[in-house]
Amino acid sequence: MNSLYALIMAGGGGTRLWPLSRRNRPKQMLPLVEDRTMFQISVERLAPLLPPERIFVVTGADQVDALQASTPQLPPQNFVVEPYGMNTAPAVGLGTIHIQQQAPDAVIAVLTADQHIADKARLRRVLAAAGELATQGYIVTLGITPDFPATGYGYIQRGAPLAQVGEFQAYRADRFTEKPDLETALAFLQSGLYSWNSGMFIFRVEQIMAEYARQQPRLYSLLREIQAAVGRPDYQDVLHEKWPQMPKISIDYAVMEGAQNMAVIPVDMGWSDIGSWETLYDVLEHDPDGNAARGDGRGHIHLGTKKTLVYSNKRVVTIGVKDLIIVDTDDILFICRRDRSQDVREIVERLKAAGEDDLL
Amino acid sequence: MNSLYALIMAGGGGTRLWPLSRRNRPKQMLPLVEDRTMFQISVERLAPLLPPERIFVVTGADQVDALQASTPQLPPQNFVVEPYGMNTAPAVGLGTIHIQQQAPDAVIAVLTADQHIADKARLRRVLAAAGELATQGYIVTLGITPDFPATGYGYIQRGAPLAQVGEFQAYRADRFTEKPDLETALAFLQSGLYSWNSGMFIFRVEQIMAEYARQQPRLYSLLREIQAAVGRPDYQDVLHEKWPQMPKISIDYAVMEGAQNMAVIPVDMGWSDIGSWETLYDVLEHDPDGNAARGDGRGHIHLGTKKTLVYSNKRVVTIGVKDLIIVDTDDILFICRRDRSQDVREIVERLKAAGEDDLL
Repeated sequence: MNSLYALIMAGGGGTRLWPLSRRNRPKQMLPLVEDRTMFQISVERLAPLLPPERIFVVTGADQVDALQASTPQLPPQNFVVEPYGMNTAPAVGLGTIHIQQQAPDAVIAVLTADQHIADKARLRRVLAAAGELATQGYIVTLGITPDFPATGYGYIQRGAPLAQVGEFQAYRADRFTEKPDLETALAFLQSGLYSWNSGMFIFRVEQIMAEYARQQPRLYSLLREIQAAVGRPDYQDVLHEKWPQMPKISIDYAVMEGAQNMAVIPVDMGWSDIGSWETLYDVLEHDPDGNAARGDGRGHIHLGTKKTLVYSNKRVVTIGVKDLIIVDTDDILFICRRDRSQDVREIVERLKAAGEDDLL
Repeated sequence: MNSLYALIMAGGGGTRLWPLSRRNRPKQMLPLVEDRTMFQISVERLAPLLPPERIFVVTGADQVDALQASTPQLPPQNFVVEPYGMNTAPAVGLGTIHIQQQAPDAVIAVLTADQHIADKARLRRVLAAAGELATQGYIVTLGITPDFPATGYGYIQRGAPLAQVGEFQAYRADRFTEKPDLETALAFLQSGLYSWNSGMFIFRVEQIMAEYARQQPRLYSLLREIQAAVGRPDYQDVLHEKWPQMPKISIDYAVMEGAQNMAVIPVDMGWSDIGSWETLYDVLEHDPDGNAARGDGRGHIHLGTKKTLVYSNKRVVTIGVKDLIIVDTDDILFICRRDRSQDVREIVERLKAAGEDDLL
C-alpha cells in the first residue's frame, strides 16, 4: 500500500456557534467538546495511525500562526497557507500538490478540523481501510448514516457492493446530491441507500490530479504552475498571482460528482459536525438532570434546572430553568431555548445589517 | 409647624437581589430602577420639600464614604455613623440626638434608602401632612395599602379616624403586628383595616425621646451619654464604648408598638421595597413584549422573548425565552425563572456553607 497522508482542511469560519465562534475565532479553534480545540483533536486523533510528518494542514494566512502554535508536534512546513479562503476544490488541490512534491505516490485522506468523532479508534480503522481501497484505484468517501432528514448536508447514494475491507463494507458511490429539500431528504432517509457526505475523502495523488486535469483543466493548470514554484524563492509571488484566478468551487462539485471509480464506505463512528448549539449539547456529557457545562468557569450551581447547556468562564447559577443554551463571552451574553438555537443566524444577520462588526 | 428634618436609614445589607447586591454593595448603592442609586434617589426626591441641611443619614462606617461621595449636596457632618450595624431602635436614636443638637424642636421623618416610590410628589405631600400631624402631638407612620397577603412585612391596624390633612386621612394606629403567618395576613387583607408598615415614621424629637425614656430606659440613658459627647474630642471614644451596650431591637418593637398617640396615614404612592428580582421586574418599565433591561450594557436584542428582566453591562441576546431573570455581574451569571426569584436565598446559603465568601 502506498504511504497514507492526512490533509486537514482547517480554513473554515462559520457563525453557527455564535457568540463563541467568531470571525477571528472559528469553530476549529474552540475547545467545544473536550479541553483541547477541535483542531488539536483532529490532529491528535490521527496519532497512532500517522506520524506527524505525514499530517498536512491547509489553512488561511489569518489562522496559520494560531494553529501552528497549538500543534507544535507538526512540522511547520506541513502548514499549507491559502492567501485567503476560496472553496474546497482549490484548497484540496493546493494541499495535494505540496504532498505530491514529497511523496508522488501518496494516498491522501482529506479530513475536517471542526467535526466531532466520538469513536476515534474506528475513525483510524476506516481511514486505513479506505487507504487500502484507494490503493486499488478508488476515490473513497466516508459516508455517515443519517439520523434525520437533514437539509444542510450533501448525500451520497450507494450502488453495488465493492468489497469488504476489514470490518467495513465499501460500495460504489452512484450519485452525489448537494443539500436537498426536506421532501427529497425524507425520501433519501427512507430508502436506506443514502449516506451523509462527511467531507472526508481518500485518494491516490495521481488519480485525483488526473480527475482535476480531466474535469477542471483551468484549475489543474493553475495548480501545476503553483507546484512548479514550490521551493523556489518566487513561490509566494506565483501563489498570490494564480490564487485569485482559481474558480471558487467545492471539491464535490468540481471533482467528486463526475469522478470515475468513486466508492463510499458507510461508517458509524459517533460523527457530528456540531452545526448548532443544540448538536453541541447532544454530544456533551450530561449530569443526571441532563445539564452540561463547558468553559473555564467556577462551575454551574443549579436548582431545579434541566437539560441546559452552560458555556461560561465565570460562576453560573440557574434556578428553575430548562432546555436553555447559556453562552457567556467577554462581550456578549447569549441565552436561547435549545430548540431554537438555529435562529442565532438571524441575530448574526441583524448585527451585520447594523454594522456591529466587532460582535461578529 | 416645627422644622421638618429627614433621617434616612441607610445601613442595610441584604442579599435578596444577589448576585447584584452583595455584602459590600447593598441594595441602596445600586441603580436598580433609575440611573441613580436607590440612596441618591432617596435623597433627591426630598429636594423640593427639604433643604440639604435638613437631610441626615444614619449609616455604617463601612458605607459612609461611598454614600457621601454619591451625594455631595449633603453636608458631610449630616452623616451619622454607627460603629457597626445594630438594629433600628439604636440607629433612629443616634440620628435623633444629632438632629436634636441642631434643632431641639425638630420634626423628624425617618425614611428608608432602599425602597422604590413611583409617585415622588405624593411622598413629599404626605410627609408634609404627617409633619403637620406630628406637630399636633402624634407619632405618625406611613401605611401602605396591601396588594397581597405578604408574610414578610409588618402590619398596622387602623382605628378611629383622626383628621383629614390635605388629601390624606389619618387614623389612630391601634396595633402593630410583625410579620404574620399567611392565614393571619389573609385575614388582615380581607378586613380592609390594615396597612403594611413602610418603616417610615414622623415625630417630634421631644416626643420620641420621651417614649425612649419611658419604654427603653437603658437605651435612652446610653443615647443621652453619647449625646453629651457630641462635638467633644472624646465623642468617638464614648460612642464606641456605649454602642456595644445597646439592645439590638427594632424601633417598632422598642417604641412604636407601645407608644401613645400613634397615628397612621394610609397612602398609595407606588411603593415597593424591591424585596426580590420579581418585584424589581414589576416596577421597571417594560417594552411591548414585557421585557425590561437594566445595566450599562449595549442593550438587549431579542427574538421571541417575553416578560424577561435583563441586568447586564454587556450586550445580551435572547431567543425564545420567557419569564426569566437574567443578571450578569463580573463574577457571577445568574439565570432564574421569575416566579422562583426568592430561591436565591438557598443559593446564598449554599455558598456560605461552602465558604465561598468572595461570592457573597
